[in-house]
Amino acid sequence: MGVVSLFQIVPAGSITSPKGFQAGGLHCGLKKTSRNDLGAIYCEVPATAAAVYTTNVFQAAPLKVTRESIASNNGQLRAVVVNSGNANACTGRQGEADAYAMRAAAADAFRLAADEVAVASTGVIGELLPMDRVAHGITGLPAALAVGDEGADQFAQAILTTDLVKKESCVTITVDGHEVTIGGAAKGSGMIHPNMATMLAFVTTDAAISPKALQSLLGETTDVTFNMITVDGDTSTNDMLIAMASGLAGNTELAPGHPDWDSFAAAFRYVCQTLAQAIARDGEGATRLVEVTVNGAVTDLSAQAIAKTVIGSSLVKSAVFGADANWGRIIAAVGRAGEPVNPDTVDIQLGDILVLSGSQPVAFDEEEALEYLKGDTVVIHVELHNGPGHATAWGCDLTYDYVRINAAYRT
Amino acid sequence: MGVVSLFQIVPAGSITSPKGFQAGGLHCGLKKTSRNDLGAIYCEVPATAAAVYTTNVFQAAPLKVTRESIASNNGQLRAVVVNSGNANACTGRQGEADAYAMRAAAADAFRLAADEVAVASTGVIGELLPMDRVAHGITGLPAALAVGDEGADQFAQAILTTDLVKKESCVTITVDGHEVTIGGAAKGSGMIHPNMATMLAFVTTDAAISPKALQSLLGETTDVTFNMITVDGDTSTNDMLIAMASGLAGNTELAPGHPDWDSFAAAFRYVCQTLAQAIARDGEGATRLVEVTVNGAVTDLSAQAIAKTVIGSSLVKSAVFGADANWGRIIAAVGRAGEPVNPDTVDIQLGDILVLSGSQPVAFDEEEALEYLKGDTVVIHVELHNGPGHATAWGCDLTYDYVRINAAYRT
Repeated sequence: MGVVSLFQIVPAGSITSPKGFQAGGLHCGLKKTSRNDLGAIYCEVPATAAAVYTTNVFQAAPLKVTRESIASNNGQLRAVVVNSGNANACTGRQGEADAYAMRAAAADAFRLAADEVAVASTGVIGELLPMDRVAHGITGLPAALAVGDEGADQFAQAILTTDLVKKESCVTITVDGHEVTIGGAAKGSGMIHPNMATMLAFVTTDAAISPKALQSLLGETTDVTFNMITVDGDTSTNDMLIAMASGLAGNTELAPGHPDWDSFAAAFRYVCQTLAQAIARDGEGATRLVEVTVNGAVTDLSAQAIAKTVIGSSLVKSAVFGADANWGRIIAAVGRAGEPVNPDTVDIQLGDILVLSGSQPVAFDEEEALEYLKGDTVVIHVELHNGPGHATAWGCDLTYDYVRINAAYRT
Repeated sequence: MGVVSLFQIVPAGSITSPKGFQAGGLHCGLKKTSRNDLGAIYCEVPATAAAVYTTNVFQAAPLKVTRESIASNNGQLRAVVVNSGNANACTGRQGEADAYAMRAAAADAFRLAADEVAVASTGVIGELLPMDRVAHGITGLPAALAVGDEGADQFAQAILTTDLVKKESCVTITVDGHEVTIGGAAKGSGMIHPNMATMLAFVTTDAAISPKALQSLLGETTDVTFNMITVDGDTSTNDMLIAMASGLAGNTELAPGHPDWDSFAAAFRYVCQTLAQAIARDGEGATRLVEVTVNGAVTDLSAQAIAKTVIGSSLVKSAVFGADANWGRIIAAVGRAGEPVNPDTVDIQLGDILVLSGSQPVAFDEEEALEYLKGDTVVIHVELHNGPGHATAWGCDLTYDYVRINAAYRT
């Protein structure tokens, strides 16, 4: 990202770093262990809000409720309440009633109107929420809020399911001479695929920004970050990304045309990209992050389709797990993506190691490739020499642990 | 299949059961073990031939050569030569020259014209064929041919890669009072996906049939059999299905409109379907066959897309391995297939056990479901109540062994 120097990374930052935001989490009894399973983000002032939702036909009840809140409250939110351990998906009318009840309970607890509150859920599909535990837990949320990173940490823990690590990101940037902060938290580990799968992400900022600009920035950024990750090709019923802007940084309202718009957008994208990469790296059972870059496609959309096909290939993922420089599987995936590809002009690199040139095998040092593939991050470069389109996708390797985790998830 | 009584299954039958066909196989040194890796089918008379090929952009060299043979020889073939252990794919001009050399060597050995011979390869991608071993092996093929099932068995062994079992099928049917036999052999275990992935299949018959009718029957049958199986979502560079008809049964030429056409087509489909199911059951690492039927879609094509999405879901496949009645993953896959689905009218059954009705969970006996899911074959029924479209797809579970096999395939 060429504009990386325009923003500052805040290593210990979080969703509560932007002015106006508090967060917290607690255990209310949805998870069998004592880990947090309920959390909230709270903004001291009405925050400009935007959201994107899963493309799955079977959208879970909380998504409907959140969509209604944002629409009926003039694009603003004050709080988000989130539970893990139960997705409240495919739960019918009772599930919808439960999502509304969650929203009402949170509004009561925080003394807000119902439509100032968004709701999100993640976990097992098709089981009704134990509403007594959820409602009781929500009454404890205001006390669980804490200014600063401790509350954000408790929240980041509360949204996890099979995740091994919490995912946070934070940057600062100068807008009109005012320091603006953008923070993010996310969860996601399995059922991850381009269109926002079992993934929840929350981005907060103290920037003043027009609602329309925030919504369009969120959509554009999602296309090149969260929608470019895949763990297993499955798309959840519950995915949601919510952005909230408190406006307390004191800058003049951001929108395209503002002199600092491009750098704000780059900072926003950085936060989303690091969260997306963290989700891919923490893919169920994963031992390494895989990045696929495609250049020379006819269009960016075509490059995206090819990158997603390669990153989603079970055979490529298994080969990365085995540190096997099996580029044949990479080119086979490129060739089945359904996109225009010249079969005679494809180059493939594993990191800096050229393995295919003009669609022909290149002699390379297998030992060097083995060492590279055993690393923490594996980058696969595909150059098609067929046009100006480029894209990057992120995923992970396919391992024994992926099978173990998903063969016994409910039990 | 309602017309199943119109044909007779021949339990010990094979590709050499139809009149006029011989087959054989031997070890020429492409596989590290002593297993067969080279085989041939030979027809005593010119056989009407038809073929379908992978849709992958990177078609392996043998496919080009086979296409040329069938086109230049007026739709007829006398022999097919097949090697396993090396796919001769992504091998450039040398690979093409090698495929032509294989064809020429087989033509010499069998005293045929070059364009009477088809070539097929399967195995690792991107390595040149050791042509000295291949050429030497081909000189031994005429002696390896044996009339009867022993030669067919040697051939069926010779085309395997990571397959655990050979795949054969045979039926007889009466056409104009003449006994007509249809036999088949196939290989395929990994890189299997709807469009003919690392799969080779050969169907022989002694029926007299018009070339045009054979080609269109082959295409239509492939769409509902071989193209409805998936192991891992990957589509190989080498898939090919070749049908050869010797015409020695003595029937009047079959074509649509012939009084026995429908029953011949049903028998042909049965052979292809049993081979396709055998490939899915023998999917890399699989412990059980999974069948997904979709009814009530808006069209058959839409039902096919939904069935393929469910059968291809890593999460569904992992749940089947774990004998977990996790229907939430099934409905999530239905919902992301990109097809018209009414989110309120979906029923799901596991075998005879109803688990979802009108998109709502149904109380069911978890123990009974566990027992069912531990069986040899798992059938998932999806009823959409949205139209007349239906389809069936076949696949397998996702297991530790799939990962083990594919993490270390080349080494």
